[in-house]
Amino acid sequence: MADTFGEQHRIVYYEGDVTGHASLTSLINMMILASEDQSAHIGVGEDVVTSYGVGWVVTQYHIDIPRMPRVGELMTIKTRGTSYNKYFALREFWLVDEAGNECAHATSIWVTMSYATRKIVPIPADILAPYHSELVRQIPRLPRPEKLTADESIEQKDYRVRYNDIDHNGHVNNAHYFDWMTDVLPAEFLKAHEPVTVNIRFENEVQYGHVITSRVGTPVNADHHLKTVHDIQLGDQTSAIADIEWRLTAN
Amino acid sequence: MADTFGEQHRIVYYEGDVTGHASLTSLINMMILASEDQSAHIGVGEDVVTSYGVGWVVTQYHIDIPRMPRVGELMTIKTRGTSYNKYFALREFWLVDEAGNECAHATSIWVTMSYATRKIVPIPADILAPYHSELVRQIPRLPRPEKLTADESIEQKDYRVRYNDIDHNGHVNNAHYFDWMTDVLPAEFLKAHEPVTVNIRFENEVQYGHVITSRVGTPVNADHHLKTVHDIQLGDQTSAIADIEWRLTAN
Repeated sequence: MADTFGEQHRIVYYEGDVTGHASLTSLINMMILASEDQSAHIGVGEDVVTSYGVGWVVTQYHIDIPRMPRVGELMTIKTRGTSYNKYFALREFWLVDEAGNECAHATSIWVTMSYATRKIVPIPADILAPYHSELVRQIPRLPRPEKLTADESIEQKDYRVRYNDIDHNGHVNNAHYFDWMTDVLPAEFLKAHEPVTVNIRFENEVQYGHVITSRVGTPVNADHHLKTVHDIQLGDQTSAIADIEWRLTAN
Repeated sequence: MADTFGEQHRIVYYEGDVTGHASLTSLINMMILASEDQSAHIGVGEDVVTSYGVGWVVTQYHIDIPRMPRVGELMTIKTRGTSYNKYFALREFWLVDEAGNECAHATSIWVTMSYATRKIVPIPADILAPYHSELVRQIPRLPRPEKLTADESIEQKDYRVRYNDIDHNGHVNNAHYFDWMTDVLPAEFLKAHEPVTVNIRFENEVQYGHVITSRVGTPVNADHHLKTVHDIQLGDQTSAIADIEWRLTAN
């Protein structure tokens, strides 16, 4: 059984939005922080991974959010490298509140990319072993996000990738995709709704200075919830696709 | 003597930039967090202030940064409401590293704005008393930032105020001005330089959906440092002016 790592995090005002709840971007940031802290803790931090000529890249998230936490709450963030095969690793995250209730659960798929070739390579065994992940034949498939179709009414806004969107590896912090995907929705919608379920798949990297287009279709009904379908386009290339189910914002 | 409040904060990866140092935006966020925590701690948190029909607004910062902290460092953030008179309050902040060295010191000027009239009003005595600030005749003047002149070569970029730029009061989080002001500079400049001294003055509020223009003049030599002069324009109205001195980025 894979080792679970946990740490506490107080959600602070600049991780929240106008409703006083954590933003989706902050949720992802906290989760990735916990995974970085686990990796460093067991001796396979970024410097070690880099020494193998590779970097971890997340390709997909499936996130369930039973209750969006509020600013001021102390959360416990737990994570484990659940399972892996030759090319893929599955990592889970949980956000648990002080009463022990699960506020969010995320499943993510990771690959290792060669710095030399920019291609996906088999995961080096040495950087995986310390997680005690389970070797599996097939990694469970996460739900594939829906795609926007040409006959939909689409809203879109352009975003220039900023200096502060870039992390210390020179890559765009994936969490910023959630800013671009939510910001394209009207403020009145965002104030009244919060995400219940998110599926996102990253397809092509964007870089500093790129101007991307964040597109969203008209919200539709799905399973008692409103659902929005999103993509991020760079010219005629798709950088990411996502769908988000929403419920009315809780107090 | 005004009471000093302190708290610890670990600088995490999403508060840092590509050089592995805290961003200017994060520095301001951490400071404001400490001031909010002090206010709540002594019973004059935002809900209490709001009940007087006013909100605190910062009009000016002067920031000295002897050493820009790195991601992973545990900082102690100290703050006190140093002095005040009828209309103005002066608040100081310090960021201190684990060895006890001062990494940053900021002085800020605050006013209270009436929610009803959107005008500056005398600071209600009850919301000031718990800080034990010193009543002074004249608040020290902070250095006024330089202004861009028409004969300079100016670079500029436009930024739309996003949903996530808005705080739980519906106002733009002031820290985002630093994102707009730094992002307009070339990435190569930002990688090679870090701020030593920052003067910023907020003149007119910007709101969700506004498209502002961040402008910067060509870096000039000043006191052994490069200096840049900035403003944020909304149409023909100036929202903020600032100047920043820079040194070569330390390791």
